[in-house]
Amino acid sequence: MQTSYDHDNIFAKILREEIPCIKIFEDEHTLAFMDVMPQTSGHSLVIPKEPVSTLYELSDEAALACIKTVKRVGKAVQQAMNINGSTVFQHNGKDAGQTVPHFHIHILPGSLFGIKGHAAEFADPDELKITAEKIIACL
Amino acid sequence: MQTSYDHDNIFAKILREEIPCIKIFEDEHTLAFMDVMPQTSGHSLVIPKEPVSTLYELSDEAALACIKTVKRVGKAVQQAMNINGSTVFQHNGKDAGQTVPHFHIHILPGSLFGIKGHAAEFADPDELKITAEKIIACL
Repeated sequence: MQTSYDHDNIFAKILREEIPCIKIFEDEHTLAFMDVMPQTSGHSLVIPKEPVSTLYELSDEAALACIKTVKRVGKAVQQAMNINGSTVFQHNGKDAGQTVPHFHIHILPGSLFGIKGHAAEFADPDELKITAEKIIACL
Repeated sequence: MQTSYDHDNIFAKILREEIPCIKIFEDEHTLAFMDVMPQTSGHSLVIPKEPVSTLYELSDEAALACIKTVKRVGKAVQQAMNINGSTVFQHNGKDAGQTVPHFHIHILPGSLFGIKGHAAEFADPDELKITAEKIIACL
């Protein structure tokens, strides 16, 4: 499938290490890091290294790699945030509220209800680092 | 991983054909059907045939099968509902708002914003059938 992937999007820059992220986990095919505009404390992201913008362009290999990382990180997020539940979601396209055009999966501890709006405000980086360390300790 | 899967949950009954569903797609490992309490028109569900309650118990084989079906059905949902975007999400555990304890992935045309609450009210089955036919025509 042809795609108009933008190689200058912020997650592409994070993958090229041109800009930093607060990393939770990385393997050959995926990267997990803290959302800098969390909708709730512990809000994490998983992205493939494959350069695609939506689920509909993602290869099966990258999709499975993402799911494996989501399972690993999601369990750690639940444990770190001491919540027995998590919500996993992803937006495809601007019309669905996707703000960064590199495929990404959100992991939230708990429910979608009562959370902040998407990409609403930046969190304190020091607090994010503390949360990331808690999650990493549970991996 | 040990799991306390409830074999009498409503999706297990749908898989055993003890109760009906408005089916969109089925293959060896997955089933896609209309959510009877849609949060927006076109709201569809994808479930594995594997009897697990959350993502964290799902096998890699079933996870990949689910993703393949979500890609296929999600594209059709976008086309059928004439919206250039979709949101894919799933809840793990009661504390995350999961209402049926069989792993399921929600597909919504468009955004999460402005949609109805989860499992709030039943839709007219005839309207759901018409929507399902539109989606099936786009598969």
